[in-house]
Amino acid sequence: MTAKPKLRIGLIGTGFMGKAHVFGFASAPKVFDLPMEIELACVADITEEAAAKAAAAFGFARGTADWREMIADPGIDVIDITAPNALHKEMALAAIAAGKHVYCEKPLAPLAADAREMAEAAEAAGVKTQVGFNYLCNPMLGLAKEMIEGGELGEIRGYRGLHAEDYMADPMAPWTFRHDPAGGGALADIGSHALATAEYLLGPVTEVMGDCVTMIAERPDGRGGTKAVEVDDVGRAFLRFANGAQGSVEGNWIATGRKMQHDFEVYGTRGALAFSQERFSELHFYSADDAPGRRGFRRIEAAPEHAPYGRFCVAPGHQLGFNDLKAIEVAGYVSAIGSGGGEPFNFRKGLRIQTLVETIQQSSKERIWKPV
Amino acid sequence: MTAKPKLRIGLIGTGFMGKAHVFGFASAPKVFDLPMEIELACVADITEEAAAKAAAAFGFARGTADWREMIADPGIDVIDITAPNALHKEMALAAIAAGKHVYCEKPLAPLAADAREMAEAAEAAGVKTQVGFNYLCNPMLGLAKEMIEGGELGEIRGYRGLHAEDYMADPMAPWTFRHDPAGGGALADIGSHALATAEYLLGPVTEVMGDCVTMIAERPDGRGGTKAVEVDDVGRAFLRFANGAQGSVEGNWIATGRKMQHDFEVYGTRGALAFSQERFSELHFYSADDAPGRRGFRRIEAAPEHAPYGRFCVAPGHQLGFNDLKAIEVAGYVSAIGSGGGEPFNFRKGLRIQTLVETIQQSSKERIWKPV
Amino acid sequence: MTAKPKLRIGLIGTGFMGKAHVFGFASAPKVFDLPMEIELACVADITEEAAAKAAAAFGFARGTADWREMIADPGIDVIDITAPNALHKEMALAAIAAGKHVYCEKPLAPLAADAREMAEAAEAAGVKTQVGFNYLCNPMLGLAKEMIEGGELGEIRGYRGLHAEDYMADPMAPWTFRHDPAGGGALADIGSHALATAEYLLGPVTEVMGDCVTMIAERPDGRGGTKAVEVDDVGRAFLRFANGAQGSVEGNWIATGRKMQHDFEVYGTRGALAFSQERFSELHFYSADDAPGRRGFRRIEAAPEHAPYGRFCVAPGHQLGFNDLKAIEVAGYVSAIGSGGGEPFNFRKGLRIQTLVETIQQSSKERIWKPV
Amino acid sequence: MTAKPKLRIGLIGTGFMGKAHVFGFASAPKVFDLPMEIELACVADITEEAAAKAAAAFGFARGTADWREMIADPGIDVIDITAPNALHKEMALAAIAAGKHVYCEKPLAPLAADAREMAEAAEAAGVKTQVGFNYLCNPMLGLAKEMIEGGELGEIRGYRGLHAEDYMADPMAPWTFRHDPAGGGALADIGSHALATAEYLLGPVTEVMGDCVTMIAERPDGRGGTKAVEVDDVGRAFLRFANGAQGSVEGNWIATGRKMQHDFEVYGTRGALAFSQERFSELHFYSADDAPGRRGFRRIEAAPEHAPYGRFCVAPGHQLGFNDLKAIEVAGYVSAIGSGGGEPFNFRKGLRIQTLVETIQQSSKERIWKPV
Repeated sequence: MTAKPKLRIGLIGTGFMGKAHVFGFASAPKVFDLPMEIELACVADITEEAAAKAAAAFGFARGTADWREMIADPGIDVIDITAPNALHKEMALAAIAAGKHVYCEKPLAPLAADAREMAEAAEAAGVKTQVGFNYLCNPMLGLAKEMIEGGELGEIRGYRGLHAEDYMADPMAPWTFRHDPAGGGALADIGSHALATAEYLLGPVTEVMGDCVTMIAERPDGRGGTKAVEVDDVGRAFLRFANGAQGSVEGNWIATGRKMQHDFEVYGTRGALAFSQERFSELHFYSADDAPGRRGFRRIEAAPEHAPYGRFCVAPGHQLGFNDLKAIEVAGYVSAIGSGGGEPFNFRKGLRIQTLVETIQQSSKERIWKPV
Repeated sequence: MTAKPKLRIGLIGTGFMGKAHVFGFASAPKVFDLPMEIELACVADITEEAAAKAAAAFGFARGTADWREMIADPGIDVIDITAPNALHKEMALAAIAAGKHVYCEKPLAPLAADAREMAEAAEAAGVKTQVGFNYLCNPMLGLAKEMIEGGELGEIRGYRGLHAEDYMADPMAPWTFRHDPAGGGALADIGSHALATAEYLLGPVTEVMGDCVTMIAERPDGRGGTKAVEVDDVGRAFLRFANGAQGSVEGNWIATGRKMQHDFEVYGTRGALAFSQERFSELHFYSADDAPGRRGFRRIEAAPEHAPYGRFCVAPGHQLGFNDLKAIEVAGYVSAIGSGGGEPFNFRKGLRIQTLVETIQQSSKERIWKPV
Repeated sequence: MTAKPKLRIGLIGTGFMGKAHVFGFASAPKVFDLPMEIELACVADITEEAAAKAAAAFGFARGTADWREMIADPGIDVIDITAPNALHKEMALAAIAAGKHVYCEKPLAPLAADAREMAEAAEAAGVKTQVGFNYLCNPMLGLAKEMIEGGELGEIRGYRGLHAEDYMADPMAPWTFRHDPAGGGALADIGSHALATAEYLLGPVTEVMGDCVTMIAERPDGRGGTKAVEVDDVGRAFLRFANGAQGSVEGNWIATGRKMQHDFEVYGTRGALAFSQERFSELHFYSADDAPGRRGFRRIEAAPEHAPYGRFCVAPGHQLGFNDLKAIEVAGYVSAIGSGGGEPFNFRKGLRIQTLVETIQQSSKERIWKPV
Repeated sequence: MTAKPKLRIGLIGTGFMGKAHVFGFASAPKVFDLPMEIELACVADITEEAAAKAAAAFGFARGTADWREMIADPGIDVIDITAPNALHKEMALAAIAAGKHVYCEKPLAPLAADAREMAEAAEAAGVKTQVGFNYLCNPMLGLAKEMIEGGELGEIRGYRGLHAEDYMADPMAPWTFRHDPAGGGALADIGSHALATAEYLLGPVTEVMGDCVTMIAERPDGRGGTKAVEVDDVGRAFLRFANGAQGSVEGNWIATGRKMQHDFEVYGTRGALAFSQERFSELHFYSADDAPGRRGFRRIEAAPEHAPYGRFCVAPGHQLGFNDLKAIEVAGYVSAIGSGGGEPFNFRKGLRIQTLVETIQQSSKERIWKPV
């Protein structure tokens, strides 16, 4: 057994997503037979102390308060960016310039123009990139895609997508970078997931009509005052797809009571699918080919038949968790680096989502339909 | 015990809805303590034979092939119209001219202009009218309205409404009056229910952006050929409400697998409601006032606390059926006639729905937002 | 069109079930093409005044405070008993002696010995009888039976049945006839429904092991004191069926939060069914014959394919209510009288349920298995 | 930051559960702040080759074909047994004799007598032990226990537990060690989980009446013939609890269509809980203290309020997976070793479950109630 080549990771950021990436790096090699050995080389945080602590807690060889130094380190192969959105571009361009592969949390950048610059730089440099749209890694979404593309629903006619949560429902929730007019808002933050799922399943959107609404006009600024909010609390759109289907999508972060309503329904001529991230180990399938009087939405539970579920559990009914989706994402990216093949969701695809978001926002502003 | 005054019904039409009205007339007096005694006086059908048969089957005193004769009959108080949509106006105007009360299945008329003429004629004549939007009669919708108006959700921010079925999903389903460019289409046929529910719960819509799509461009004409379809298979809209809320609505008759997806979600600052007609004896309620760690959508089952459920069943858990909703509709209308009070859903309200439908259609055609 | 023979009803009792029967008599002839014309001849209540009022409200020709007089009335064909359980026997035997058909709410009688006397008297007299086990009238239960008997589940192996409610969960709920040691208790009151469903679907039970438990040892006697409770609050049993299957059943009236958990699951070699009365227009069907990776419980919604649903609604998705089940029960009984055929659930079957209940109670008392 | 003491793991077995343990060892230190550093020291498999391959794949320092040698290795602190059940005792006793801590998959041993010997040996040796009843590690079960013990349901009256799957539903599924009369059967294999959950939530069972049934009397022996099956395919019991509650439990491995129906309902005087492992990130809670007309089962979704969920995801709605439950189990065990405190589920508790299983089996055989 020859040793696998090493893939040395430099992580920037140690918050929710930083931690989720670490879980992914830890699990992926146990679950999958990866072509490379992941090595946690370095983690960058705001201070040396925080970085050292994170390094110890997460198992990195070292920590640093200087992400530029880390990018320059020849002992690192992948720069993994989970820092605030506004920093993604600068960090990614520096990493690309240094010849590193780049793994970046979503959104790729606040603005599509920035995302374009990043995607083009990565392509020019020939490095492998990945954007963290982890919901797409769910085996049940893979199943949905397989069923749609395999014609099990017939010709696809309609789509209804949604990503609703309530983390901004409280008007006392303070102004954050998520409310920044440059790149913020519910559509960008979570509607982007709904858009990614829509195109993952049905292919490209060609035209949109947007409706972005601000319901909470100002929020505490954290210094005793308030700050005006310009971004949308709800961003929705009518959609036209290149395959002839039509539909709608909504991102909503003031949906009181909803924690993860990343849902969709797809209607075809012979069948339909319904899915909710609230119960993401299930896919509901209606087949018009079932016998009369015996038709109904069928609750398919995730099982080893639905790759890569079987990598995690050899029996049905055990269920994957959110962090397992991250392990699948990591595995796909590492495999792409190791094999030289295509990445599951690279910067070009990340750019695509930003472009969709901005086109919808622009459409809403102008109150007219826009081609994408 | 003095005898109640009689309310003599003349029914036009003996199809699905005609039958449902008869069930309502039969049940309502058993279930409710109505101010008038319903008498099934006459039923009109296409031929004398069919009318006589229907009279016998449904318990009418007589049948007739001439609805005009029936309208002229001084022994009849209410003309109940369940004939094809295109005939509603002529029949209703004749009945109103004869001083009859008029109960008309939805839609009031194919076009808003016609509906307006009908509403104004009824108001001028001072007769009592009712349009059959029976889903609104569900005690759980009454509960939702009571909770919204009582402030149990806080200030209302968002709404998502839907009425999806699949009865036109098959492209071989022939061209019918429902495909008539004058008044046909999914939005008019069932999206109208979704609109009625939206305004019932949240009050008036002030602005709409419509998106009406024809997915099946031609259908069999029943004579071996095909006929072009111009009306929408899916009709949706963005909405603005006078109360400051925003949302969306969709009518869809090609939603494969769906039989009665008359659903809505309402989000307020302190709570939310979710409802599906597929399980219409349940209302799901989230309250942000529940204790932390104990919050969740609560499945409220219809019970005697939710009037008029208790009229049908004195214990919870027994459930009403569709025909019971019709009995509630009948009871509300008969009470309005008996008491001289306001009708639950009169021609003016029916006109309102037609106006909403047409404004959305027009908005879709022009691809711009429209005030209502 | 010749006139149908009349079937003149004499109803005893005007409570919850009396009202439900009246709804059934009102609806059944509108919904079904019955062989006889139902005539509401007379209603008996405690006082003349109450009876007169009920007659007016429910549409009976007359009322009486003397049920014996009503039984003696030659102008009545069917005696319909919805009086307290303890009176069923006396009333039914008197009615049978008078040559009347007898329709009796469940349970047939508190004790199996009494029920046997009633069944034998009815058979000897050749009158038609019916016991009100209305849950069996649900088209979805008919569908389940058809699927089981048609082999769609393969060979049946297992069954789990339940009827749980919470109307006795409050220890302050007073002592009533339902707590009478002669025939009372949760198993008799609602477990009997679970037993009826079990045998309806799988055929005869051959052996039982019972477990009847009193959890609330005394209840208010309504006169300021308390009264000891001897009957079960929960009554359950292990079951063996003649067809080789095995299973269990439970009746429970202290199941806090449950209003109508009349549920079952049936497992066969090729498929399974799951049902809950909480959503009684649905039957969930798993078929091992579905393709690998596409299997799952399928939510079949009640539709015209599931007779007699189509009698009530010509389109799927509209749903029947509890009172519609009663109309189906009435229709089945009236058809049996009119045609001379077998009744859906006659006194012999009612006796069977009482026998099962008592055998389980006796098994629990002796703490040993008992043959049935 | 001082280095944590090391905890060196020696794993026996590399199948489904071996892999799940490895996932747990990988995730737990990333997720939790453990008092010790886990080191994957050695893995034992059938052959040297398989062991070397597993060591490489799972990240162990070395592999061995000789588990006795591994137990003797002074460089190992914990022996983790995921070998076939029949070997648990010999391995555990050897490990205990060598002064190792022992982590053993469930069941502790086929027979309670063996489990007792193991528990007593461990206690005498003062080593820390753990048995893998991972469903108990679900934060939602912890929440249920907290609610029950905190009195949120009032006094507990009833319980209904179940663990049903269908992995033995096919009569062609061959005879395995799970069918061995010594310790095999559905009750032992998965009913044991239902029993563990029942006692975890309600405390000790005091009396049982068992019903163990063999439905598939013979199975392929893997050599072209068949072999008689003596163990139960369905094992159920009536239960009495020390706290005064009563209930039932069922283990079933021929429940066609069910993959993980580890469900329970608990009824108290003021509230109730319903849970299904099929949707194990939800706990359904009914509170009789909710306002009239607003009561219903509330779907509580796992969130940071429900420790240790927040260790995995800082936001609600993301969900844990089965392997995360294993990480929680590992963390609890490592913490107990590190702190010297009590283990979450030690050999004494494992013995308890075996005792319950055997008492139910014996009760079934003798067809009488048995004290536990």
